[in-house]
Amino acid sequence: MLLPNERIDDLLVDDLKIVQSKEVFSFSLDAVLLAHFCFVPKRGKVVDLCTGNGVIPLLLSTRTAGMITGVEIQPRLLDMAVRSVQMNKLTGQIQLLCADLRTVHCQLGFGEFDAVTVNPPYLSAKQTVWKNTNEHIARARHEIDCTLDDVTAACSRLVKSGGKVTLVHRPGRLVEIIQSMKRVHLEPKRIRFVHPRAKEEANMVLIEAVKDGGSHVRLLPPMIVFEEGQQYTAEMRGILYGRAARN
Amino acid sequence: MLLPNERIDDLLVDDLKIVQSKEVFSFSLDAVLLAHFCFVPKRGKVVDLCTGNGVIPLLLSTRTAGMITGVEIQPRLLDMAVRSVQMNKLTGQIQLLCADLRTVHCQLGFGEFDAVTVNPPYLSAKQTVWKNTNEHIARARHEIDCTLDDVTAACSRLVKSGGKVTLVHRPGRLVEIIQSMKRVHLEPKRIRFVHPRAKEEANMVLIEAVKDGGSHVRLLPPMIVFEEGQQYTAEMRGILYGRAARN
Repeated sequence: MLLPNERIDDLLVDDLKIVQSKEVFSFSLDAVLLAHFCFVPKRGKVVDLCTGNGVIPLLLSTRTAGMITGVEIQPRLLDMAVRSVQMNKLTGQIQLLCADLRTVHCQLGFGEFDAVTVNPPYLSAKQTVWKNTNEHIARARHEIDCTLDDVTAACSRLVKSGGKVTLVHRPGRLVEIIQSMKRVHLEPKRIRFVHPRAKEEANMVLIEAVKDGGSHVRLLPPMIVFEEGQQYTAEMRGILYGRAARN
Repeated sequence: MLLPNERIDDLLVDDLKIVQSKEVFSFSLDAVLLAHFCFVPKRGKVVDLCTGNGVIPLLLSTRTAGMITGVEIQPRLLDMAVRSVQMNKLTGQIQLLCADLRTVHCQLGFGEFDAVTVNPPYLSAKQTVWKNTNEHIARARHEIDCTLDDVTAACSRLVKSGGKVTLVHRPGRLVEIIQSMKRVHLEPKRIRFVHPRAKEEANMVLIEAVKDGGSHVRLLPPMIVFEEGQQYTAEMRGILYGRAARN
């Protein structure tokens, strides 16, 4: 069941377990916040791009009875996702595809999904620092396999008109993200910034866009991760333990 | 000195006074936050568009020894600004022009300013509600004399390359604002959202853009106006009484 240096972690919700590896891929807070923030239809179809070890499909399975598809370009990461889905007996709900998001619409079709989620690589491929990290982690963090424009275009192709696309990214790229979304008819409708502490700059942004939506966006209350020290805020504890109300 | 229904208010900083009128124009918190947030060169030239009764030039005069120009299209509002500047003995530092921002570069030139500030009308001219308010207030609040694109284009013409443009607006129009700025080579570099309370959505956004700037934006800590009740937060009290540190 486990390859060398892999481990099984507890997702803290509905007894879900997940295969992780420090050397290959392990999920971060970003994925948990995205899975909490995003729209999920009660019925209908959801696709998660850049799914990695499948953390988002696993978390979303607690919020919907609908079909969830996970797409990942790296076979080594998708293999972890496949084993996690089997371990949690979710093969009937979660389908996993090893595919390139730039062409996956050839398999999945245009406008077939009610919702798309994506936690894409945050960093430009130009930044050379990635040459020092291992290939799996570099491809998950840097725009080596796809650019931001590739990501938004893929989301736009897969989602139906009126459907929702939710993305987590770095706030520093907010302007680029908004422009990239607008070019492919994704209209940002709900934005939430995540700040490590109340008096610190945001280090994460959650954006929900509607395909072909009208132009008005809501700026939700700031999400604060820690109190003054290292203790999670009450809201964060609620999200991490799977009991928080949604906004 | 005062016309019917006008009054003199205290700006709470450096003994500044301002002429206001409930029926014509009185400044709001937005202007105070813009004057606090914006970049002001120690020397050099600043222009404030949509200056109304001159509240922003008056507040900025406490932060710079440089020349400040205020531009307002409504003679009735500019007349209040002129009398306030005289009353505060600031005619040597603050110049006021009754002009249309769409053509004011013919008088002020291209790229002559180190910084531009603007608190433009927030609401579309299409919204018919303005037909029920008086003309002065309607023109200050609704895009009757200028659109958002007119405003960003005017800012871009007046500011020099590398100079700063700071705007306050409604968060609901964030996507439009960013797109409008980008079209005229204004790159958002610092954004701060203002929330009435920590758990409420933002109702104001402060955006500082740099003409011809590079593409990276900082999302500053949220500004919270009130504690749980009606009491101002410590930061707000600092800003209102003119003693707050800047970010």
